[in-house]
Amino acid sequence: MTTPVTLVGLGPMGRAMAHALLTAGHPVTVWNRTPARAADVVAAGARLAPTPVDALAASDLVILSLTDYQAMYDILGTATAALAGRTLVNLSSDSPDRTREGAAWAAKHGARFLTGGVMNPAPMVGTDAAYVYYSGPADVLDAHRDALTIIGAPRYLGEDAGLAQLMYQANLDVFLTALAGLMHATALLEPAGVRPAAALPELLQTLTGIPEMLDAGEDTAAQLEAGEHPGHLSTVTMMGATADHVVAASEAVGVDTGLPAAVQAYYTWAREHGHGGDNWTRIIDAMRPRAKA
Amino acid sequence: MTTPVTLVGLGPMGRAMAHALLTAGHPVTVWNRTPARAADVVAAGARLAPTPVDALAASDLVILSLTDYQAMYDILGTATAALAGRTLVNLSSDSPDRTREGAAWAAKHGARFLTGGVMNPAPMVGTDAAYVYYSGPADVLDAHRDALTIIGAPRYLGEDAGLAQLMYQANLDVFLTALAGLMHATALLEPAGVRPAAALPELLQTLTGIPEMLDAGEDTAAQLEAGEHPGHLSTVTMMGATADHVVAASEAVGVDTGLPAAVQAYYTWAREHGHGGDNWTRIIDAMRPRAKA
Ligand SMILES: NC(=O)c1ccc[n+]([C@@H]2O[C@H](COP(=O)([O-])OP(=O)(O)OC[C@H]3O[C@@H](n4cnc5c(N)ncnc54)[C@H](OP(=O)(O)O)[C@@H]3O)[C@@H](O)[C@H]2O)c1
Ligand SMILES: NC(=O)c1ccc[n+]([C@@H]2O[C@H](COP(=O)([O-])OP(=O)(O)OC[C@H]3O[C@@H](n4cnc5c(N)ncnc54)[C@H](OP(=O)(O)O)[C@@H]3O)[C@@H](O)[C@H]2O)c1
Repeated sequence: MTTPVTLVGLGPMGRAMAHALLTAGHPVTVWNRTPARAADVVAAGARLAPTPVDALAASDLVILSLTDYQAMYDILGTATAALAGRTLVNLSSDSPDRTREGAAWAAKHGARFLTGGVMNPAPMVGTDAAYVYYSGPADVLDAHRDALTIIGAPRYLGEDAGLAQLMYQANLDVFLTALAGLMHATALLEPAGVRPAAALPELLQTLTGIPEMLDAGEDTAAQLEAGEHPGHLSTVTMMGATADHVVAASEAVGVDTGLPAAVQAYYTWAREHGHGGDNWTRIIDAMRPRAKA
Repeated sequence: MTTPVTLVGLGPMGRAMAHALLTAGHPVTVWNRTPARAADVVAAGARLAPTPVDALAASDLVILSLTDYQAMYDILGTATAALAGRTLVNLSSDSPDRTREGAAWAAKHGARFLTGGVMNPAPMVGTDAAYVYYSGPADVLDAHRDALTIIGAPRYLGEDAGLAQLMYQANLDVFLTALAGLMHATALLEPAGVRPAAALPELLQTLTGIPEMLDAGEDTAAQLEAGEHPGHLSTVTMMGATADHVVAASEAVGVDTGLPAAVQAYYTWAREHGHGGDNWTRIIDAMRPRAKA
């Protein structure tokens, strides 16, 4: 009772998906611009379609794992007549607006369309730790939940096609910012002779303590939604003074100040707007669109 | 056999320390510029010294918990004759250089001196989760380890007096940067209708997954020390492209780009210096002092 799946795109991610689906017993048809990249999935039991039209015809469910949305148009743009009635699940990265355009394009050609963002590196596809954000019509996800769950646990975000990539990018925003912070703090410690092997475990403990610290305070999420920032332990003034110290400590040893200065700027804004006594979460107002008005 | 302890400074942190020491059975003498703030610790059994000189005379071990190092000079500057033979443990925040000056000042007046940075908020003082970075003479820490452990587990970093506050600031660098990243990502999601209560759990999962992600790769610390950045899964090119996307996604909804642009700049530097194929950790070279040459 396993449904056939077509997979378009055989980069590291697409190949990992093909293997996971084959292992779970799904008949898998693949297509890739560079056919040679299909060798190992074909050896594992996949069928290599000769053309995109053939690949579309092989399965109701067509998963796309491409560099970006332009690649979808490049591949399927001459096969649009074969799209009617298919379900396209595009797991390629792109801007939320590009994914919304993709959904409209698919609808125009009579295809059902779901967008997704895979939240794990390719080697983790098919493991318990894997999960994928989806947005678009909920019934499309429900219809193919079994096959899609093979790749990773689906997390459905809503009807707006842009949501999945927006959530993906918001998480990568946190990820990249925190990683840059780790490297910056490591660089800050080096001139005093603290080696990365001594620094990183300490820095990672601070990083992973953040959820507990948020929970220990008020209900941070509820306060953000309400626009309330009751100042108790970690006020804008105190955290902002620390941000000043971090910039000064960086300058003192010649480490680049770009990142801590960007953090500091949000606290400076909050202080200058009379929010010194508020909880540190007030800095979100320095980022929100209305702060520009 | 519990030794007497003097505590100078009764902000939230000093008061928490006094209570923890009293609970553990230490005789505690306190002094504070504003004597009224001593009321609750006196009620709990502490003795309020009338003058700084009296406070110094009461105990070999004198812990300072003040806003900064200037406060130490303001309080003890006229009591320097009473410093000889005392042990000062200054747990106030300041720049590494200011703490080095403080160590030299104490030595000039015949006092032993240890600097520290408390890594937890005041309410956690005395709990199992509390820990304190120390630097300075190791034997001074050893001589007072029992009393200091009441406050939090000591983590000794080395002889250089500046190390404790440097490590404290490096951790706060990571902390403030990650918190700003969380708020930025939350702001990025809001315009599409994703509420903070839906966003934060997702973003926190990404944050706390970072240590596992670092472990899953090479030995990150060893590679940083060796200056080697073998590119496998997360290259500068890939992560840099994602940094570009986050900036673009922020611009698209009018969310401030200061923070993601600061992150992006490190990837841009690494790409422009021919490191596109390296592991993302190469961005540390954009932060290190030598990158400015
Ligand atoms: N790899 C990961 O760990 C990971 C993690 C999370 C999300 N993702 C996302 O998953 C998607 C796929 O990732 P990947 O690592 O497999 O990416 P990739 O190495 O960039 O490969 C993507 C695929 O896109 C194809 N492609 C690109 N441009 C094309 C075009 N103009 N016409 C036709 N085909 C084109 C490639 O074909 P050729 O083989 O012919 O070049 C290849 O099959 C990306 O959007 C990525 O951001 C990846
Ligand atoms: N609170 C925390 O959760 C926390 C966490 C980690 C580290 N720390 C660090 O621990 C230290 C103390 O924290 P806190 O929250 O208790 O700080 P605080 O509220 O700033 O209180 C500090 C103490 O310093 C005294 N003081 C400040 N300037 C003075 C001056 N010029 N002369 C004499 N006394 C002066 C204050 O006396 P008055 O009472 O007379 O004003 C008060 O007793 C700070 O360096 C802080 O960065 C605090």
